[in-house]
Amino acid sequence: MAIMVVGSVAFDSVKTPFGERDRILGGSATYFSVAASFFTDVRVVAVVGDDFGPADEAVFLERKIDTSDLERVPGRSFHWSGEYGYDLNVAHTRDTQLNVFADFKPKLSDRARETPYLFLGNIQPQLQVEVREQVAAKLVAADTMNYWINNTPDDLREMLRRVDLLVVNDAEAREIAREANLVRAARRILSMGPKRLVVKRGEYGAAMFTADSYFATPAYPLEEVFDPTGAGDSFAGGFMGYLAATNAIDEAAFRRGIIYGSVMASFNVEEFGCERMRHLTYDEINARFRELRAFSNFEEAEMPPF
Amino acid sequence: MAIMVVGSVAFDSVKTPFGERDRILGGSATYFSVAASFFTDVRVVAVVGDDFGPADEAVFLERKIDTSDLERVPGRSFHWSGEYGYDLNVAHTRDTQLNVFADFKPKLSDRARETPYLFLGNIQPQLQVEVREQVAAKLVAADTMNYWINNTPDDLREMLRRVDLLVVNDAEAREIAREANLVRAARRILSMGPKRLVVKRGEYGAAMFTADSYFATPAYPLEEVFDPTGAGDSFAGGFMGYLAATNAIDEAAFRRGIIYGSVMASFNVEEFGCERMRHLTYDEINARFRELRAFSNFEEAEMPPF
Repeated sequence: MAIMVVGSVAFDSVKTPFGERDRILGGSATYFSVAASFFTDVRVVAVVGDDFGPADEAVFLERKIDTSDLERVPGRSFHWSGEYGYDLNVAHTRDTQLNVFADFKPKLSDRARETPYLFLGNIQPQLQVEVREQVAAKLVAADTMNYWINNTPDDLREMLRRVDLLVVNDAEAREIAREANLVRAARRILSMGPKRLVVKRGEYGAAMFTADSYFATPAYPLEEVFDPTGAGDSFAGGFMGYLAATNAIDEAAFRRGIIYGSVMASFNVEEFGCERMRHLTYDEINARFRELRAFSNFEEAEMPPF
Repeated sequence: MAIMVVGSVAFDSVKTPFGERDRILGGSATYFSVAASFFTDVRVVAVVGDDFGPADEAVFLERKIDTSDLERVPGRSFHWSGEYGYDLNVAHTRDTQLNVFADFKPKLSDRARETPYLFLGNIQPQLQVEVREQVAAKLVAADTMNYWINNTPDDLREMLRRVDLLVVNDAEAREIAREANLVRAARRILSMGPKRLVVKRGEYGAAMFTADSYFATPAYPLEEVFDPTGAGDSFAGGFMGYLAATNAIDEAAFRRGIIYGSVMASFNVEEFGCERMRHLTYDEINARFRELRAFSNFEEAEMPPF
């Protein structure tokens, strides 16, 4: 089935120890939709300015992503500028310009309102709620970040009450729950609304919690991480894209989704922006899925056998 | 087969957010040998002072650990005093007194020299080498810490050349290799001597590298971590104890060993010192082994199936 994402389509200026790029196409909705497009039909809801040109739109169109709900308004698109040090785990933001995103009020088309799978990318919780209310989706997932957790806690609580699934990193999970122990933090978040929590742990992989299940996977081991920007969104895109594609909302499908999410994130960080995903093949995706199975496989045993 | 550990038998004063204990039995060789004793025969090589009494020795004897190479000398035993904050990941050392450990020169008995499995706990690399030279073991593993990496780099290099397996945490692996990327760090360490590297990642689990294989497992998820002291040594004890017990040095055995190590560490942190391991049962060990299998299991898939 189809999936819709609302989030940012942006131009990023990124510096890593391996190089620098100025105003390349980025944003949570871009990474998410390109990753998800390998699995199912994707519709992107976002706003862009005059600086969004045919070469940018081509990134969506070559992946057959539906851009009819991509609003174009006069002005400049959202801009983020950031830098990564050698540890590559923390982005240091140099500048954020909301530009046309400051007045974004998503107005969904009739077709958009019928999309069965919805991902609310990391934007103001209030906007996430407004979009969520317009869609009668089968499964609604959301991301957020420390800025909203700290500055709009009431809106965040409201958003959490209205989603089935939350996808955040471990620092965010701990902040939302105000609890250092991740297992207890997860339990607290599950009492706030979402029935399922996915925790992204960067180079350590991902974990998934429900009231009565737990799943964890290591990340795909990479010797070269070129640009971590978009890792979380391409993870979410692979994860949700696979779920929408199978349309099977059960524990086994969620687990395979986590693996596809890990695979897509592992490719995305190998080049700047979403360049790597633009020349990614199914053979490559399937190979890493199989490798992750091999990397985490071990046999039964019983003590004391001797 | 039997395993021998050389390391410290100490008295620790530990403060965690959950309580405080003064001069409880600890030390790398203690945690290691108690954990390993659930899997095979264990011989402990260490030095203790007059303050090591019958109640302390009982911890070893009740687990049938061979203490005939536990040297007793006049003076006080090694003492460590430390504190953990709420994140429980980093120990803040308040005081370290080497005491009788300062002049420790391990002299192994004839029977000790024939032990087929050897673990060199975290002590001076030079002592690790001296012990290693006295034993014609089938498999030799070692641990170390940042202090030796920074202060005795040449001795550390010498030690690395003489062991089959290194078991360290991720910060230590990165420091030894002087490389932030763990996969590249692992490759560099494997070029220094050990044929296999096990990386302990605390709450994130463990990873294992050889020149042509990779394995990773998440940690057992715990809601209550009471005292992290000894987690790494009880991990190593479960891991090496299982290997010695099966006496099968192949990838599948190493992987099951990593899981048993994770299980033993997860129990050890639930109470102060090695108190939890003193009333641990095989049913409990087997239950967590099975749970770790269930937590990391996912099915095959292939894209695009639609």
